[in-house]
Amino acid sequence: MSSMIRRGTPVRRALALTRLLRANTEGLAEDRRFRPGAAADIGPLRATSRPYCSRMSLTGGPLFRQLFELESNTYTYLLADTETKEAIIIDPVLETIDRDLTLIHELGLNLKVAVNTHCHADHITGTGLMKKRLVGLRSAISKFSGASADILLSEGDKISFGKHYLTVRETPGHTDGCVALVSGDQSMAFTGDALLIRGCGRTDFQQGCPEKLYKSVHQKIFTLPDQCLVYPAHDYLGQSVSTVGEERKFNPRLTKSLEEFVKIMNNLNLPKPKKIDTSVPANLVCGVHTV
Amino acid sequence: MSSMIRRGTPVRRALALTRLLRANTEGLAEDRRFRPGAAADIGPLRATSRPYCSRMSLTGGPLFRQLFELESNTYTYLLADTETKEAIIIDPVLETIDRDLTLIHELGLNLKVAVNTHCHADHITGTGLMKKRLVGLRSAISKFSGASADILLSEGDKISFGKHYLTVRETPGHTDGCVALVSGDQSMAFTGDALLIRGCGRTDFQQGCPEKLYKSVHQKIFTLPDQCLVYPAHDYLGQSVSTVGEERKFNPRLTKSLEEFVKIMNNLNLPKPKKIDTSVPANLVCGVHTV
Repeated sequence: MSSMIRRGTPVRRALALTRLLRANTEGLAEDRRFRPGAAADIGPLRATSRPYCSRMSLTGGPLFRQLFELESNTYTYLLADTETKEAIIIDPVLETIDRDLTLIHELGLNLKVAVNTHCHADHITGTGLMKKRLVGLRSAISKFSGASADILLSEGDKISFGKHYLTVRETPGHTDGCVALVSGDQSMAFTGDALLIRGCGRTDFQQGCPEKLYKSVHQKIFTLPDQCLVYPAHDYLGQSVSTVGEERKFNPRLTKSLEEFVKIMNNLNLPKPKKIDTSVPANLVCGVHTV
Repeated sequence: MSSMIRRGTPVRRALALTRLLRANTEGLAEDRRFRPGAAADIGPLRATSRPYCSRMSLTGGPLFRQLFELESNTYTYLLADTETKEAIIIDPVLETIDRDLTLIHELGLNLKVAVNTHCHADHITGTGLMKKRLVGLRSAISKFSGASADILLSEGDKISFGKHYLTVRETPGHTDGCVALVSGDQSMAFTGDALLIRGCGRTDFQQGCPEKLYKSVHQKIFTLPDQCLVYPAHDYLGQSVSTVGEERKFNPRLTKSLEEFVKIMNNLNLPKPKKIDTSVPANLVCGVHTV
């Protein structure tokens, strides 16, 4: 186990589970009010009643950068402690690692962990090549992903950078090894492909299961505070961020009943991702076999 | 003059000018330390020593959304007061107005002003069509742009939305009618095409003038606080935000001397923008002649 990764004690885990169950119950009760057709005839969104913005936090927030890879529409996230300069990167893409490493160098950061929210099918991760270029960088991915990495993540693990950390929430459904990463103050959730802005990841390959995905999003993401910012792994419409409150209210798939959701997901009839045959084998070994 | 737009008194303007001149002198003195080849052999960036991030502000910041148009690589920005719901939009694009209006509707916002940072040559503004769809929405652009709009902006004008406002700083050089829009607390600057992330707008058409652009950026943008976030009108590499401090230190063009900058800009040999012959005439009349 990595020194960057802290696991909860059994007692803490039991308490966390109790809180989670309570939150889930409340979350599901709350959720019924939004289903279905929630987007019609509604007033202003409660979720935005607390202000949020992409601006400087003067009260100790982390350095934060959202980066975009234009071919696969993937978001990469860089977070750092501004004092210790310890940094982590989420979902780096092979094609953009020069851009990302230049930025990391310019900002004087010490990149400790490159974490993937899951084993991607649409692009090759930059993790392996980054490890070759940055001494001491460690890779991390869910223990259920089937992929090799320096750190195999489980529910409740904490990925630390300086005084900040992200907590792992397992969110299977798009793949078995999907995780969401939630900031310590629950102001930000990096939701991978489980929850996208007004959408979600597909469930028709790589252990995809709509029932699991629905449960994951409702129990692990929709139970976060309404104002928690949602940063997905992809967006195809130029949207950069959402909130848990917005998605609980306006997500066209996940505001539906489980039965309706499963029907939608089983009838998407999407083409196979162009790069799946090269991306998945590469990402199972950290992306390195292609470099 | 619009009630949303507040102009400074002559006394305030004189004081502001004094402050600006002082800041410029300091800025230029500071700047010499960074030129040229600043990116080599440098320590961690001072600009990041104050923490900033794209996360919730719990102290009254505006609602903020960065939106991207994938064909022209244009950023559109939506800002709103979370209490009054008054909102403004910066550089909307014709192709994405359905996305933007849906979001505005979902968030329960009252869009008051659509402001363009300049008369764009690479895309048609969504302002005209938005005005047709939203009663009471007013357009705004620099009085030096040559374009028609409900509000013609000048140096020092304030565009208000609820308790927040943006201040206009004229930044000619890419075009004569370019403006940067700076938040009241100087934590965010919307720099249009004057300053891009590690780049700047071209100066080879539409009254472009490298000398003017260099002066504009150094006097109107580089004099802002180092930690001020820079939100440009475009990015072509998937970068979403920078800071004034970073650009003062790492911008490969604007860290050069004026003479070197002019030489670089006069030798870019870029192809003519694909849409310039339709975009500019359309944008001179708010984009409406094409709808």
